[in-house]
Amino acid sequence: MSNLRRRLMAEAAGTAWVVFIGCGSMVLSANFCAQGLGLLGVSLAFGLSFTTMAYAIWPVSGAHMNPAVTVGFAVAQRFSIRELVPYLAAQIVGATFGAWLLAYIAGGRPGFELAAAEFGANGYGDHSPFDYRLHAAAALEFAMSFALVMVNLLVSGRRVSRVIGPPTIGTCIALIYMVSLPVTNGAANPARSTGPALLVGGWALDQLWLFWAAPMAAAILAGLLFPLVQRRPRTAGR
Amino acid sequence: MSNLRRRLMAEAAGTAWVVFIGCGSMVLSANFCAQGLGLLGVSLAFGLSFTTMAYAIWPVSGAHMNPAVTVGFAVAQRFSIRELVPYLAAQIVGATFGAWLLAYIAGGRPGFELAAAEFGANGYGDHSPFDYRLHAAAALEFAMSFALVMVNLLVSGRRVSRVIGPPTIGTCIALIYMVSLPVTNGAANPARSTGPALLVGGWALDQLWLFWAAPMAAAILAGLLFPLVQRRPRTAGR
Amino acid sequence: MSNLRRRLMAEAAGTAWVVFIGCGSMVLSANFCAQGLGLLGVSLAFGLSFTTMAYAIWPVSGAHMNPAVTVGFAVAQRFSIRELVPYLAAQIVGATFGAWLLAYIAGGRPGFELAAAEFGANGYGDHSPFDYRLHAAAALEFAMSFALVMVNLLVSGRRVSRVIGPPTIGTCIALIYMVSLPVTNGAANPARSTGPALLVGGWALDQLWLFWAAPMAAAILAGLLFPLVQRRPRTAGR
Amino acid sequence: MSNLRRRLMAEAAGTAWVVFIGCGSMVLSANFCAQGLGLLGVSLAFGLSFTTMAYAIWPVSGAHMNPAVTVGFAVAQRFSIRELVPYLAAQIVGATFGAWLLAYIAGGRPGFELAAAEFGANGYGDHSPFDYRLHAAAALEFAMSFALVMVNLLVSGRRVSRVIGPPTIGTCIALIYMVSLPVTNGAANPARSTGPALLVGGWALDQLWLFWAAPMAAAILAGLLFPLVQRRPRTAGR
Repeated sequence: MSNLRRRLMAEAAGTAWVVFIGCGSMVLSANFCAQGLGLLGVSLAFGLSFTTMAYAIWPVSGAHMNPAVTVGFAVAQRFSIRELVPYLAAQIVGATFGAWLLAYIAGGRPGFELAAAEFGANGYGDHSPFDYRLHAAAALEFAMSFALVMVNLLVSGRRVSRVIGPPTIGTCIALIYMVSLPVTNGAANPARSTGPALLVGGWALDQLWLFWAAPMAAAILAGLLFPLVQRRPRTAGR
Repeated sequence: MSNLRRRLMAEAAGTAWVVFIGCGSMVLSANFCAQGLGLLGVSLAFGLSFTTMAYAIWPVSGAHMNPAVTVGFAVAQRFSIRELVPYLAAQIVGATFGAWLLAYIAGGRPGFELAAAEFGANGYGDHSPFDYRLHAAAALEFAMSFALVMVNLLVSGRRVSRVIGPPTIGTCIALIYMVSLPVTNGAANPARSTGPALLVGGWALDQLWLFWAAPMAAAILAGLLFPLVQRRPRTAGR
Repeated sequence: MSNLRRRLMAEAAGTAWVVFIGCGSMVLSANFCAQGLGLLGVSLAFGLSFTTMAYAIWPVSGAHMNPAVTVGFAVAQRFSIRELVPYLAAQIVGATFGAWLLAYIAGGRPGFELAAAEFGANGYGDHSPFDYRLHAAAALEFAMSFALVMVNLLVSGRRVSRVIGPPTIGTCIALIYMVSLPVTNGAANPARSTGPALLVGGWALDQLWLFWAAPMAAAILAGLLFPLVQRRPRTAGR
Repeated sequence: MSNLRRRLMAEAAGTAWVVFIGCGSMVLSANFCAQGLGLLGVSLAFGLSFTTMAYAIWPVSGAHMNPAVTVGFAVAQRFSIRELVPYLAAQIVGATFGAWLLAYIAGGRPGFELAAAEFGANGYGDHSPFDYRLHAAAALEFAMSFALVMVNLLVSGRRVSRVIGPPTIGTCIALIYMVSLPVTNGAANPARSTGPALLVGGWALDQLWLFWAAPMAAAILAGLLFPLVQRRPRTAGR
């Protein structure tokens, strides 16, 4: 298999894993009162599914599994612009496969209905879990995506990156979900938003623009600002 | 003690630990409403019991503690075929001992009945916690076991494996349980399925075939596909 | 950008992140009965938000994000006294920005009122979640801040500090919140206390003195005692 | 300060921390229905309080913080028999101080009564949370202490011990508490049992013998068996 093809396969498989586990934790396991995963469990499922897969595929593809991260790296000139579109396509294909596999398995429960479960799709206003309005959802998606892309850039390219990168980024994702699950169902990753939206359709597709626009704007800003912070002094208060 | 004997003892002890802690978290601690471990706690118990024991015995036996992993490594030609049967036997013996020890301790609570607790045994259809049908249980077991064996292969044989292997695989197990506890009580490990089934008997033994067939088929596929992905490029998007 | 300016930016951004995620987990996500984050989730949010940001900015600024830590390092002569005031100022500015951003987003929920939510501000007596009196709150803040600053000093300046420092300190913060959330809403960090207090005003500003006095006294004591324990023997019972 | 005195101080301080955080999580934070820490939070508090302190004092004292571990190391001839009694004394003094500090702070809540809270003391029969009988409590304490001491021995003395030791042992403690909190309130550490028992008095002192006898017998057995497993082959199934 060619080198790029192997990397794209890793990105697709990794994104499928994150969407399957993360959305799966919401659809299959979140809502048994008191015994279910709750907000903490779902947040950890999204974060740790990144960490575990990133340890596995970091040496293969760099483990982006998120179009905002790939765009941020490209803007910061740490990723080849020619591979941008293939990476994004692989991520979206993987996310869609993960969502489809989840729908197949969730459908094995008598009485399951895809539309009722909302399936982890992202939304604002009437489709926010607690009716958060557009401006709050947009501000949160922008701020959280900016933090996520900046953390990705800061923990890459160091000697210890392969050891500390996956848990740092995965923890960052878990924290983002801890505060954004009640607002937008948790996004900061356009591929993760697109997969379930394609299965749910309707309002989820109508509102999908926000979950591309806000993370992408944040990724571009983070990529532009990164050169200002990247050079690192030797001694730094420790 | 001979080298192989020490390795088998490590596999047996490790699998006993995982079954005792994992199933023990379900039987002893999961169901006190609101205060119990719930799905998140049980998932972490299964995952972290692997991690902690794997750090201890990784240098001794490689810390498979799962027949699917041993078979996957053998198919991928990373494990001697001659040691396959002893490893599987040690894992099953350990899992059965762990389940027996748990039954002895759980029986010290006045009013405990083994049959009523179901004891962490795996099932589908009427014996799935939420009545998930056979096709959904089989698809989930196959997909999760495939991911688990592939992650095992990907994080082994690297310079950093002894540091990142145990937490990566343990986290992977925790995530698998987060989505599969409501479907099958969580398996992806035929030894873990066999131990409690031997104590529960009846339906648990009747349905045990699925929890060998699906993980083993997935392990063989992962072992066959692994050579396609294993060679690693130097620079990879980070 | 100058070296000091970059370090101050890192401290401000890091403290903003910790306050936004930590207080955000309380304000946005803690209180949906059974499904919310609860004490465990909020504690992990405060602790892990430190860990993730510390991995990112440790090489830039040393990742104090807490005036008590900066003062403790200065007293222990591990931090330049000339940079003390700029570091503290950056931390307070960051904490205030994080609290403001949280207020903006939380305000996007119909019916949200800042005053009612108390917004993660620290208090004692009538403003302790369970009415803990001043002497208990002061003792707890003093003891926990002493432990936190001492752990910071003990895990710094070693060859492995960049790997083990962030998770050790972050876990320490999570543990401190596990026991102090019911007593004072969790502090041991004067910047984290100041940000929300400025937005809540009133009683929160009146009681703010304790959440500077106790951590600062503890930090000075820890800095003075540290030289007694810092020299390390080679073999030590392991 | 002399070398031994510094090590004893580290053991005392570390054990005080573990008892304060672990028992504190039970006494202060466990029981707010649904929002409290619950079994999972208390288990993590005991486990992670070990991890965080062990990273800090591992190079000073070896971070035993548990008489069973010290005895196990002495029997396995990895710890000087002459320092056994001072280490145990330091651990008991620390545990008692931690319990006393907790009682002082918990007493700051209007209406708190020490006797009613039981204060995290260990018990069996009528004083087990769910009335588990003596034989079950003894079997569990023995098995869990054996696992804990063996894991301590297995992860020590390696090149990576200072990095993987603290999280492995801390996770092991958390897992032990996940299954033993409902049975005995969680022990496997005679010092942790002694501190609260001295404050509670009465039945807690009457039943304290079990929480010394079972862990010590297990520690001696683990220390005797360790030489059989300690030599490590180079290739081991990974």
